[in-house]
Amino acid sequence: MGIGDDIKWDERGLIPVVVQDYSSKDVLMVAYMNKEALELTLRTETAHYFSRSRQKLWLKGETSGHTQKVRAIHIDCDNDTILLEVEQKVAACHTGHWSCFFRTWKDGWTVTGKKVFDSSEVYKNP
Amino acid sequence: MGIGDDIKWDERGLIPVVVQDYSSKDVLMVAYMNKEALELTLRTETAHYFSRSRQKLWLKGETSGHTQKVRAIHIDCDNDTILLEVEQKVAACHTGHWSCFFRTWKDGWTVTGKKVFDSSEVYKNP
Repeated sequence: MGIGDDIKWDERGLIPVVVQDYSSKDVLMVAYMNKEALELTLRTETAHYFSRSRQKLWLKGETSGHTQKVRAIHIDCDNDTILLEVEQKVAACHTGHWSCFFRTWKDGWTVTGKKVFDSSEVYKNP
Repeated sequence: MGIGDDIKWDERGLIPVVVQDYSSKDVLMVAYMNKEALELTLRTETAHYFSRSRQKLWLKGETSGHTQKVRAIHIDCDNDTILLEVEQKVAACHTGHWSCFFRTWKDGWTVTGKKVFDSSEVYKNP
């Protein structure tokens, strides 16, 4: 049996993936996988996703080097959401924050998460 | 400014919500909210969702009593996913497991999460 066989893929052939840091247990991000991304993630132990905006397979960290080593892959009771436990290199968010969920509602969205790197340096044009 | 104003609602008017237990930091489930569910969640400090299968507003725990007291509401960098930190009563999953992500891939999906209650007792017909 393959890892993608029991999964309830959505109408686009995708499944949402919650990504959690293995040691801190912080929730880092949510991304989407197609079957190819899931199989590649399992085989390489490195998180791959499917980019909905670019419509292509995406190795997390391919530009920044901020890759995610996979420690565990969980499925939910409905077979329609994955939880990935990873070792996150440097930070998960392209804004430079450790987690993409760096804002909290306090009568408005307020930055509460920690900033780890300067995104203009990491993603600068050549 | 209202809590729903900046959110990128999908084509169904929904946003995915990752639900995390506040003390253990365990990821419990993923559900969906519409604007009404989000506003009600903020006002009552108790998690409400929108059921995609039943197409109606849903107070989490309305049958089981396993409600979720909200401790924090976070938004991600793209404004299209919410992270809810909650105090979970008893368990999150209708199967009786603490978390909906109770299975882990080990050459097949294997139950690794803890079971907390007997679902046939909690959801029995009157």
